[in-house]
Amino acid sequence: MARRLVTLTTDFGAADPYVAAMKGVILTGSPPATIVDVSHDLPPHDVLAGAFMLESVIEHFPPGTLHVVVVDPGVGTDREILVARFGDQFVLFPDNGVATMVAKRLPLHALHAVRNERYLPTKPPSHTFHGRDIFAPVAAEILNGLDISRLGPQPARYKLLDVPTAERREHEVVGQVIHVDRFGNLISNITDENLPNQPAAADHLRVHCGECEIGRLVAAYGHAEPDALLALVNSMGYVEIAVNGASAAERLGAGVGTPVRVVES
Amino acid sequence: MARRLVTLTTDFGAADPYVAAMKGVILTGSPPATIVDVSHDLPPHDVLAGAFMLESVIEHFPPGTLHVVVVDPGVGTDREILVARFGDQFVLFPDNGVATMVAKRLPLHALHAVRNERYLPTKPPSHTFHGRDIFAPVAAEILNGLDISRLGPQPARYKLLDVPTAERREHEVVGQVIHVDRFGNLISNITDENLPNQPAAADHLRVHCGECEIGRLVAAYGHAEPDALLALVNSMGYVEIAVNGASAAERLGAGVGTPVRVVES
Amino acid sequence: MARRLVTLTTDFGAADPYVAAMKGVILTGSPPATIVDVSHDLPPHDVLAGAFMLESVIEHFPPGTLHVVVVDPGVGTDREILVARFGDQFVLFPDNGVATMVAKRLPLHALHAVRNERYLPTKPPSHTFHGRDIFAPVAAEILNGLDISRLGPQPARYKLLDVPTAERREHEVVGQVIHVDRFGNLISNITDENLPNQPAAADHLRVHCGECEIGRLVAAYGHAEPDALLALVNSMGYVEIAVNGASAAERLGAGVGTPVRVVES
Repeated sequence: MARRLVTLTTDFGAADPYVAAMKGVILTGSPPATIVDVSHDLPPHDVLAGAFMLESVIEHFPPGTLHVVVVDPGVGTDREILVARFGDQFVLFPDNGVATMVAKRLPLHALHAVRNERYLPTKPPSHTFHGRDIFAPVAAEILNGLDISRLGPQPARYKLLDVPTAERREHEVVGQVIHVDRFGNLISNITDENLPNQPAAADHLRVHCGECEIGRLVAAYGHAEPDALLALVNSMGYVEIAVNGASAAERLGAGVGTPVRVVES
Repeated sequence: MARRLVTLTTDFGAADPYVAAMKGVILTGSPPATIVDVSHDLPPHDVLAGAFMLESVIEHFPPGTLHVVVVDPGVGTDREILVARFGDQFVLFPDNGVATMVAKRLPLHALHAVRNERYLPTKPPSHTFHGRDIFAPVAAEILNGLDISRLGPQPARYKLLDVPTAERREHEVVGQVIHVDRFGNLISNITDENLPNQPAAADHLRVHCGECEIGRLVAAYGHAEPDALLALVNSMGYVEIAVNGASAAERLGAGVGTPVRVVES
Repeated sequence: MARRLVTLTTDFGAADPYVAAMKGVILTGSPPATIVDVSHDLPPHDVLAGAFMLESVIEHFPPGTLHVVVVDPGVGTDREILVARFGDQFVLFPDNGVATMVAKRLPLHALHAVRNERYLPTKPPSHTFHGRDIFAPVAAEILNGLDISRLGPQPARYKLLDVPTAERREHEVVGQVIHVDRFGNLISNITDENLPNQPAAADHLRVHCGECEIGRLVAAYGHAEPDALLALVNSMGYVEIAVNGASAAERLGAGVGTPVRVVES
């Protein structure tokens, strides 16, 4: 039997009982489930951060994995809950745009609203904790093999966020920082696909972050001098500004929204 | 074979090796065990917070789940270690009151002191880390099917905390904040059972938190205006004060102990 | 079939997608794997903290467990990746000294550089995230039963850190704080093996931390008065300074590097 693998991505934090309650419900409904935490430390209500997190991990999981994303400021309102198949992965999420970045990366093969009362809890769910009362029991049904088309009709549309994208100009690509990681690395929305694709051209590219010129792209953190600023294309394909052994965010006073430019010179 | 499911609730934090050492011992003693973290971020030595955490999750786990709770400021003294069956759940815990809130919610079917040396480690346990040296190996034995009555005699009594409870007065219910969650939601000890049970009466109820009148109970966070204060009965049945999209704790300067009142008007 | 158990120890934090990406790759390559988090909250780039963490847990896991340690400031440079068998445990780690403390505690039975391209990913790995692109797929191969000698040649030497050790003088042992845990307990590098081994001698030992005399060794936190300073030999065999119910680090203004002495009087 295939492993029944489910990941959880939420803004619930690690200090409250919300994540564990969801896990209990999933394991009650689907005892052989294997649960992997992606992150529960998303900034509260930050749907864009959830979208970025999901994009960063989804392609690394085995085909058929179910990804449950509960960053859900609209819980208890009339926003829909959706289930989708992107590529060979399943995603269960509130219709608030949290799948935006996955939708840019993987083909959407199926999309259904979760409405069929047969698969919803028999006692009415709370209005404040659908993670436990709807997402978790529906996840268990999917892990048990339920065809997602049984969960409800195909919606006419679903919400996508207006994500800032990098812009190509005459002699430069202009973007911005979209994520700061634990190391203080500044991850921009400029991807390797935005850059000239002749390797020879790389020598003529200079990366700028805010007011500061960082310099050429290097291959690895350790290729800069210790404690020096550097820029590279990171493991997800994004241009990233870092310091070898320290925090670029602190060094530059930069954060989400700081402009990043790659200039041909 | 039934899944051998065990949850862990501690104040050990995520940065130290204590939790992983416990997991290693459990998996050594009971290799097929499935371990679920409830939380390890309880405030150090905060037995009441542990009691609240356990209550919040216990009923959502499958029958026969073992819950190991190690918030244990008395480690190494003569406090007992107890194992209980509450409802269809097992709990292994130090006798310091950490099961108090579960005991109010679920019937106690069995209670034993952990004393039988046959099931204790052969080398003497440390005096400072019973989580690793007693709780974990005993948990493995229980997961392997040991009848808990074999672990020791029934104690004559066990410790219960003096938990603040809501008080019903003539035209109001008076309680206090007992937990602040990651979102800054203020969770009080007033439950739906403390409130008048005619739905019609709800329109006449006004919630107050500290000096501030919050207003009527609403159904969901999103039913208040963005950034507005609101009160609702949360997913655990407790009256909760929140802000739609922000932190009520910050807005009101409130925290554990702040008075909460529900007034009939 | 033996359980395929793997632990992860990193400085990736819990808020970024790095750990989950590694887990996805491991579960893709070795679907029956069971993954245990040791800690992901090591201070960024702190190899010594990683060495301490690994030492604290390794002996508590079942024989044959694989421990993957990714504290790797040299990622993308020419530092090797190594796999070792220490005692009955396997460790996969960058050659930066992170196995130093395990090497003092357990015999090294085998050591290989990870170089065999047959077991490396077919597409070139990133230069910034070997945790996902090399450590995780190689871990999956080992969990699937690959003999580690197939991964590459035995290196002539490997890096060990210059760890501060306690020094025995005429009437005292002199060491320092090497770790502060979540409770504010100050863990020193003085071990029970550094102390006189006649139990009768213990009464004549006095522990000092910085400028402060703590007093005799006690057996358990609860054997000191509430809120009093105390010293004990902790569950790992290290002399530790604590406060019963509060933080010794705060009380003493002490931290990593603060001198600790055990004096015979």
